[in-house]
Amino acid sequence: MGSDWHGIFPYLVSPIDEATGAVREGVLRALVEHLIARGVHGLTPLGSTGEFAYLTFAQKRELVRIVVEAARGRVPVVAGVAAFASRDAVDQARAFVELGADGVVAVLQRMFPLDEAGAEAYFRAVAEAVPCPVVVYTNPGLIGGDVTPAMVERLSAVPNIEYVKDASGETGRILSILNRCGDRIKVFSASAHVPLLVFELGGVGWMAGPACILPAECVRLYDLARSGRQVEALALQRRLWRVNEVFQRYSLAACIKAALTLQGFDVGGPIAPQRPLPPAAHEETAAALRWIGEEPGAR
Amino acid sequence: MGSDWHGIFPYLVSPIDEATGAVREGVLRALVEHLIARGVHGLTPLGSTGEFAYLTFAQKRELVRIVVEAARGRVPVVAGVAAFASRDAVDQARAFVELGADGVVAVLQRMFPLDEAGAEAYFRAVAEAVPCPVVVYTNPGLIGGDVTPAMVERLSAVPNIEYVKDASGETGRILSILNRCGDRIKVFSASAHVPLLVFELGGVGWMAGPACILPAECVRLYDLARSGRQVEALALQRRLWRVNEVFQRYSLAACIKAALTLQGFDVGGPIAPQRPLPPAAHEETAAALRWIGEEPGAR
Amino acid sequence: MGSDWHGIFPYLVSPIDEATGAVREGVLRALVEHLIARGVHGLTPLGSTGEFAYLTFAQKRELVRIVVEAARGRVPVVAGVAAFASRDAVDQARAFVELGADGVVAVLQRMFPLDEAGAEAYFRAVAEAVPCPVVVYTNPGLIGGDVTPAMVERLSAVPNIEYVKDASGETGRILSILNRCGDRIKVFSASAHVPLLVFELGGVGWMAGPACILPAECVRLYDLARSGRQVEALALQRRLWRVNEVFQRYSLAACIKAALTLQGFDVGGPIAPQRPLPPAAHEETAAALRWIGEEPGAR
Amino acid sequence: MGSDWHGIFPYLVSPIDEATGAVREGVLRALVEHLIARGVHGLTPLGSTGEFAYLTFAQKRELVRIVVEAARGRVPVVAGVAAFASRDAVDQARAFVELGADGVVAVLQRMFPLDEAGAEAYFRAVAEAVPCPVVVYTNPGLIGGDVTPAMVERLSAVPNIEYVKDASGETGRILSILNRCGDRIKVFSASAHVPLLVFELGGVGWMAGPACILPAECVRLYDLARSGRQVEALALQRRLWRVNEVFQRYSLAACIKAALTLQGFDVGGPIAPQRPLPPAAHEETAAALRWIGEEPGAR
Repeated sequence: MGSDWHGIFPYLVSPIDEATGAVREGVLRALVEHLIARGVHGLTPLGSTGEFAYLTFAQKRELVRIVVEAARGRVPVVAGVAAFASRDAVDQARAFVELGADGVVAVLQRMFPLDEAGAEAYFRAVAEAVPCPVVVYTNPGLIGGDVTPAMVERLSAVPNIEYVKDASGETGRILSILNRCGDRIKVFSASAHVPLLVFELGGVGWMAGPACILPAECVRLYDLARSGRQVEALALQRRLWRVNEVFQRYSLAACIKAALTLQGFDVGGPIAPQRPLPPAAHEETAAALRWIGEEPGAR
Repeated sequence: MGSDWHGIFPYLVSPIDEATGAVREGVLRALVEHLIARGVHGLTPLGSTGEFAYLTFAQKRELVRIVVEAARGRVPVVAGVAAFASRDAVDQARAFVELGADGVVAVLQRMFPLDEAGAEAYFRAVAEAVPCPVVVYTNPGLIGGDVTPAMVERLSAVPNIEYVKDASGETGRILSILNRCGDRIKVFSASAHVPLLVFELGGVGWMAGPACILPAECVRLYDLARSGRQVEALALQRRLWRVNEVFQRYSLAACIKAALTLQGFDVGGPIAPQRPLPPAAHEETAAALRWIGEEPGAR
Repeated sequence: MGSDWHGIFPYLVSPIDEATGAVREGVLRALVEHLIARGVHGLTPLGSTGEFAYLTFAQKRELVRIVVEAARGRVPVVAGVAAFASRDAVDQARAFVELGADGVVAVLQRMFPLDEAGAEAYFRAVAEAVPCPVVVYTNPGLIGGDVTPAMVERLSAVPNIEYVKDASGETGRILSILNRCGDRIKVFSASAHVPLLVFELGGVGWMAGPACILPAECVRLYDLARSGRQVEALALQRRLWRVNEVFQRYSLAACIKAALTLQGFDVGGPIAPQRPLPPAAHEETAAALRWIGEEPGAR
Repeated sequence: MGSDWHGIFPYLVSPIDEATGAVREGVLRALVEHLIARGVHGLTPLGSTGEFAYLTFAQKRELVRIVVEAARGRVPVVAGVAAFASRDAVDQARAFVELGADGVVAVLQRMFPLDEAGAEAYFRAVAEAVPCPVVVYTNPGLIGGDVTPAMVERLSAVPNIEYVKDASGETGRILSILNRCGDRIKVFSASAHVPLLVFELGGVGWMAGPACILPAECVRLYDLARSGRQVEALALQRRLWRVNEVFQRYSLAACIKAALTLQGFDVGGPIAPQRPLPPAAHEETAAALRWIGEEPGAR
């Protein structure tokens, strides 16, 4: 293979019209344009920030189609594949690649307990179904179950499983993965914890929801880290973390959607039965954005 | 309203052809016929035993269509509605009722945290979308989150929310629900724990996977409990529980499918990436069925 | 062996003077007298209602001494043994028996993970250290870890491990234990869930905190169940459960201590850093006691 | 105040004679001498590596006495205070300071739920009881409950609460604490995750069990980080992490004790009912120590 994805990949929200269920195409195209203009290195629709579990297959396809078209090949589009059943995941992966996605980020949803071999079979099935690079996404908190470093090591033997996106929140796991897999797999940080540290440990980039609303700052963090400007990077990391603390207190998708609305992107609220942010949280979000220097409405 | 559902409602497995994804219509029809012949009081496709999370919407519709047709109105068919998004749940409920389902059992899948008002809105949306009785299904273990007795009390004010199916495993909760709601809601036991006790506490019936493979015994337990033959009922409950202990050790759907296969119903294995029962578990299952007096293949 | 403990064993609170750490001997003696007068079948100091983890070894010994003396042999005194280290548990068990306890209820506190053999060794060590009957106490919720039915089965081979007190909250487990162990072990219900059902399933009694404040009602429930007066028993169970629901909302020891204070037993508040019940909870507790017909202060 | 603790503080094991329960004074003195010779900056008896929950108060006092005497003032001795009850914690803190400890690391054990004010009252009670610096120790995984950044912020107003030792495993929390508390509190890393990163984020040191067996390497990591030799530091961190991965697979105290035994310190096995490492784990431990260049027996 040999893709070279790296840097900041914002997780896109899914702007869905509440009354009709239709994708709000205009605002999604505007958001893609905005993010690319701010220097992001890739785009990932259908992540957890994208409320993947709340979308129908038809909505998922529509979202990928729009993002691919709007990106116009300027940055890679890596679409989220999320399913309980292997067949469902394979169908998603194929559909997204047909629509022009450059790769997929695969996550396994769980209901019944599953042993490691079963979970690995799921990721292998996705990888075999598509000719493009695959990112294995671990997120024990949200999804249940876990993809352990030992599983990552075994999956790294699959040629097009080139990346892992670790959202375990444990930075030590990244060392474990790198110690085990060496060059056979590249690590994206998923948690907003401390991407700076992930860069230092050898991670190639950061895929996360907050990059959707602070793209320039995230890109700058990446650039500072790459060029060894450690002190400035750390200062910026501390500032970014303060914004992230606000988002930790509330539901992620609701927060990112509220912040984008403040920035002039009318992406709507979270998909029901999720509820919009309460007013106090709106104000906290606005205050955090002002504080970080990204004036709401300054777009 | 005034439906009078009661007794034993087996949760049907979903026989899906692994190669094609098609529903195995013949065996599903045979199973429905068999269960009705053994005296069950209703049928519930698309429960957790039915691997709801692993099915596409098209497969779900096909399963409901076949069960409704095969039941021919002899017993009520109460189809499982399960979704993350309210819109998805509403679409399912409407589709199943159009296909002839007599009611729905609604469960809420969760990814992001949701407050009680949000969860209640989901169940209200389902109830408003259909003219038939709705069963609110709680299953904190499998699904995450919980429908508390206080939520059940508020939901019981919705006219067509007539039942709750409690799979919390805590018999005390049934007392809490009955103490709070009185006649406004009827309780089905979902756990296979000790349905006998649920009958005593005032529950109207039992919806559960094991009834799929031991229908006559489950019906007999219900009849013994109804007619006050406490000692015989308790002895049977203890025997049934022993079989259930086998199923607790393994994945539920895999067990029920394996047991049905032993009984001559070629329903296939669990949907991938779930894995078939290991051989030892097959033998344990066969032994448990023999022990309870239901000779494998005796169908 | 051949002890025949059965019926209602209230878990005693530990009345500790906040300023000095001394046991309030007078009120503890009065409580013991009161409970015996109301017909309880045994007494269990140092359970979770007794805040065992918050007591020094000296306080524990003092509590057992007082209860043994006050009981004057009229009912068995079964003292709680709780420790992380086996040696500590053995020391407690020996000390309590020397002070005159008729038996011990042993629970294992956990910090580091422990395999089943390790946990079983703990209970065996306690049983070998004393000549009296031992109750194995499982409480996965409070203590962490679990004593599975398979472990109970193996432990039931130890001659003086005669009882298990199951606080798992899963009534099905009692069937599992009875199915596995037959007559080799007797089951006390620990959860306040639905002791009535435990009696029906074959349990010999109920050890629980609420019996400390509603002794007569608990004894009556036991008597009704024993004499087959099912309908009255169920009605009483439903009433008792309503009181229990109040206690579930707050910290158990704080609730029982507050209720006893309302009844005229000045047992003090929970041991710091636990905090006294908030005023609203006091009122709820008072209301629940009035409702059940046990007038506060009516002692 | 104004203590200036920093650097590597190994958590000492508790060498207890299995037959008698006595502290093995000789080996503990030898270990203290060895660690100081290797350059550690402080010593912390009675941490989780020290199996605090498995020790009697008498054993705890004996351990502190020996460590204080052996250290002879060359490095600060910061003793672990761990209790469920505030009174117990206060008694421990006072006793350890009387024995010559330079400070205490306080952790709250929990059984019943406790609100934030209750937990804070525990730490305030300890701080008020002693004239020396206090380290607030958070360890949600082992102990249950959590000390949130907001609680740390409030506790940092207590003059002698000068440090926090964060074992949450979430590096982001350290940023949260630093962002909230500024200079009012200093952070020790507790997790062995990635102390290097904690140093970079502004942490003053590392208190952890593995430093007991790899003191020179840990001190070198600290020195490299302090002197800005980032590349070498990272390479060493990756090597140290590999050893730590072995310890993660087994019980911590059992591992550290086994490794020390391999190094010639006859500290005995973990306190029962904990079980000694299985032979395979012994070999893994020996291999990891050889790999890191610390020949077993090379002492």
